[in-house]
Amino acid sequence: MKLLEQRILAQGKGLDGGCLKVDMFLNHQIDVDLLGEIGKEFKRIFADCDITKILTIEASGIGIACITAQYFGVPVVFAKKGTNKNIGNNLYTADVYSFTKGITTTIAVSKDYLSENDKVLIIDDFMANGKAAHGLINIINQSGASIEGIGIVIEKGFQPGGDSLRALGYRVESLAKIKSISDGQIEFM
Amino acid sequence: MKLLEQRILAQGKGLDGGCLKVDMFLNHQIDVDLLGEIGKEFKRIFADCDITKILTIEASGIGIACITAQYFGVPVVFAKKGTNKNIGNNLYTADVYSFTKGITTTIAVSKDYLSENDKVLIIDDFMANGKAAHGLINIINQSGASIEGIGIVIEKGFQPGGDSLRALGYRVESLAKIKSISDGQIEFM
Repeated sequence: MKLLEQRILAQGKGLDGGCLKVDMFLNHQIDVDLLGEIGKEFKRIFADCDITKILTIEASGIGIACITAQYFGVPVVFAKKGTNKNIGNNLYTADVYSFTKGITTTIAVSKDYLSENDKVLIIDDFMANGKAAHGLINIINQSGASIEGIGIVIEKGFQPGGDSLRALGYRVESLAKIKSISDGQIEFM
Repeated sequence: MKLLEQRILAQGKGLDGGCLKVDMFLNHQIDVDLLGEIGKEFKRIFADCDITKILTIEASGIGIACITAQYFGVPVVFAKKGTNKNIGNNLYTADVYSFTKGITTTIAVSKDYLSENDKVLIIDDFMANGKAAHGLINIINQSGASIEGIGIVIEKGFQPGGDSLRALGYRVESLAKIKSISDGQIEFM
């Protein structure tokens, strides 16, 4: 997606260790016009799928998922991190290791909001090692729902998450796929 | 907002201790069509304000803020909970006590995304004791931005947050204001 790549080059910051900071427009400050274009593009890509629900994970996936869901006309469900008393006990859960934070978090989705009748599109802001996506897939599999695809805004192509999921047969579609981040230079595939 | 009150009565669950569960449509599963109506209503209410930015707090405020921001044509900034290595050091921070979770969390906003030129609308899903709103106000005050208003989807009118903020001179507008939750019965003001 050209518009997104241009924005990443203009406002993203490539950091040491392959980190990419896009908090100017995607995951701290959010440009909702850009999210509209992102949602439209996901709808174009997954137009052949009969999606009933979009699943994401808090926090930075939520805005993208909500605006994308407007184009699909379906509800969003977001997996919560941790299990506090607000969400009840009737849960699907999975453990997700975060390389960024260096910790394992339990994510949870209420059994009320995913069932075997659902056809799910997973949406998230980043794909790097794919741990969050694997956690969401685990939860969807527990529910018996089908996984129609995985839509990622920015995939770090130099990390194994996306391709390992494709090798497992999942349809992973990224709007920007980064080949390398080196000396602050960002290169796309 | 009639549509919202009807939805709360139809799908919300009043629990002991004044808790209201609306995770069917607002803060776990999200009805994005309803969020569109909510965003439109906030725009109608705050039409006289010259908003430059919508500020919310992760996680459940993000979807509401993003869809509302589409009607204002402004970016969203969401305060992050905790301070991990992803967000940097150039931060406004405030401590927020959560009655639901029984803990104090530090919330943070990068200094890059709020400045004295901003006119901010705070948006959140719930107002109960007002601790989150006070944390966001603290952060906005550090930045020198002005606070145009506080838009809340559901205010628990039997808890002191909303009225204590009004007493301080803030413009707090709630789309549904709950008078009481008793024996599972929800009553509006």
